Amino acid sequence: MSTTSTSGLVIPCKAAVAWEAGKPLVMERVEVAPPQAMEVRMKVKYTSLCHTDLYFWEAKGQTPLFPRIFGHEAAGIVESVGEGVKDLQAGDHVLPVFTGECGECGHCKSEESNMCDLLRINTDRGVMLHDGKTRFSINGTPINHFLGTSTFSEYTVVHSGCLSKLNPLAPLDKVCILSCGISTGLGATLNVAKPKRGSSVAVFGLGAVGLAAAEGARIAGASRIIGIDLNPMRFEEEMTNGGVDRSVECTGNINAMISAFECVHDGWGVAVLVGVPNKDATFMTKPINLLNERTLRGTFFGNYKPRTDLPSVVDMYMSKKLQLDKFITHRVPFSDINKAFDYMLKGEGLRCIISMED
Amino acid sequence: MSTTSTSGLVIPCKAAVAWEAGKPLVMERVEVAPPQAMEVRMKVKYTSLCHTDLYFWEAKGQTPLFPRIFGHEAAGIVESVGEGVKDLQAGDHVLPVFTGECGECGHCKSEESNMCDLLRINTDRGVMLHDGKTRFSINGTPINHFLGTSTFSEYTVVHSGCLSKLNPLAPLDKVCILSCGISTGLGATLNVAKPKRGSSVAVFGLGAVGLAAAEGARIAGASRIIGIDLNPMRFEEEMTNGGVDRSVECTGNINAMISAFECVHDGWGVAVLVGVPNKDATFMTKPINLLNERTLRGTFFGNYKPRTDLPSVVDMYMSKKLQLDKFITHRVPFSDINKAFDYMLKGEGLRCIISMED
Repeated sequence: MSTTSTSGLVIPCKAAVAWEAGKPLVMERVEVAPPQAMEVRMKVKYTSLCHTDLYFWEAKGQTPLFPRIFGHEAAGIVESVGEGVKDLQAGDHVLPVFTGECGECGHCKSEESNMCDLLRINTDRGVMLHDGKTRFSINGTPINHFLGTSTFSEYTVVHSGCLSKLNPLAPLDKVCILSCGISTGLGATLNVAKPKRGSSVAVFGLGAVGLAAAEGARIAGASRIIGIDLNPMRFEEEMTNGGVDRSVECTGNINAMISAFECVHDGWGVAVLVGVPNKDATFMTKPINLLNERTLRGTFFGNYKPRTDLPSVVDMYMSKKLQLDKFITHRVPFSDINKAFDYMLKGEGLRCIISMED
Repeated sequence: MSTTSTSGLVIPCKAAVAWEAGKPLVMERVEVAPPQAMEVRMKVKYTSLCHTDLYFWEAKGQTPLFPRIFGHEAAGIVESVGEGVKDLQAGDHVLPVFTGECGECGHCKSEESNMCDLLRINTDRGVMLHDGKTRFSINGTPINHFLGTSTFSEYTVVHSGCLSKLNPLAPLDKVCILSCGISTGLGATLNVAKPKRGSSVAVFGLGAVGLAAAEGARIAGASRIIGIDLNPMRFEEEMTNGGVDRSVECTGNINAMISAFECVHDGWGVAVLVGVPNKDATFMTKPINLLNERTLRGTFFGNYKPRTDLPSVVDMYMSKKLQLDKFITHRVPFSDINKAFDYMLKGEGLRCIISMED
């Protein structure tokens, strides 16, 4: 399994290329170069669409970078590895992750952080770290990467520090959604909010991330889970006799962030911020809300270290502790990938699995 | 020891009465009524002056309440107890605390909170909870209490839930300062910021509370303690390669609060807010500062439960783990109590011990 017939060669394959902001992806024949030092080339088996893909595809409010291959929630199989990659080999099942774990920096060495200095998410970069070049091209025209993953392609090249090795028994068409949104919400609750058994948890925003945060609250044994979407109207305090024990904010709306903080109980309440707001937004609150022993914490990817921690999340699914099926509301073949964009634009469903081989 | 000759009788004694905002206290003969249900009358042995006394004595920015007997940092001996008091008796050494622990409410039952619903600090109340009356009078004129402690009197009446029973070997002229400021700063670091051994801690504000926070950092084994007073100019990031591991804000200045938060390291930094700002102040920060895995927490009285936890702080002093002597910069007899106000107004020294019997 450690070498394959394509190892070291350029692989031509299908990819869904975004040529322009907001325009349907175009299925193209791309050439995928072999992995360089510390890189891995993988065959993508299943990918799903996340809001972050949509956001950068729409390119409203950030520098557009096109042509580009989007996609970052996925699962697949290692095709070949570049120089220096020791912990993965051809045939390994993997989840690519939009942020990585080099294992060497202060963040990777800290028990508390997953914000790797080397491989932390970078939405503006369209090339690989090793040489500042892309591994995708069409007739010699380089095609930009996205989040170092670019999973809307039958093959992609990823830094080995951004790949989590999977239990080979895990069904790839399910666990692919653990590579971004579901882990983000789940970890926000389990790793950061840490509700006690019997406590109350408010979740702001009931998309896939928020519902994954609620799934975390269920797993933690919360006795009351309050979901809030649109117009919370500050009803929480009345509903909960002084506030909830924990809240998890998954919308990125600045007012929801402030409400999520102010709705936790004094003395012990913990609010966890997940959603990413507009750059111009400012978080504001009266200091007394803090001084009365509330805690406000932000989290990134649920505080999971991609390589170290994701296997345990997969295990939670394999042991039926974590439910994933309920998040998968649609399935389409790769050729219909633009339908996944349509579903998300219409707010229909949670996760649409895109099957690369159908 | 369970009854004394004065038990049940009104005790006439000396008290330093504040008749008007900002005017020197006047030494008066006051009558101290016996303790009612769940109350304790104690002989104050030593008291010290804290900024909160000064703040409410100056009465700038809050409703003035005069005449009033200030004072809340103290140590003394129980003279008699009211009906229902089971855990204290005449002769017990005690620290009165400006906030209490009823033992029954949600906060007291929570491991995380010390903000007792019944006995939480109330700066506006000048009477006892039991009957809404004062225990102090001068020729029939009621004199207001302050923070339920009013320790600028030879005898005072305190709710039993606001008294921490002391190791009788503890020197009252030292441990009296544990009843407010020192425990507040110390606990902010030890109980809330929780720096790891070898970490860096920034302390904003180098009065008694801030220096107690620094003392907590020393005890916790921090390898670098950075004290910041006035004009921090955001030098911390450069000094600390990305920020400090922990910060403790003890000034109450809103800009210092914001700086204290923004100077902690992403990934794992924890900022703890202690200082109480102006009511009009607003805490503001860019959400990304939170989302990058920083934690912002407020604390009240160092998260110590007065009755449950203060004995362990006294033990830390008795075992020489905690240094207290360095905080005591002045001593005056009770008759010179106005000198203590002068020292504080001039910013001279840290704590002035007022000896009631000299």
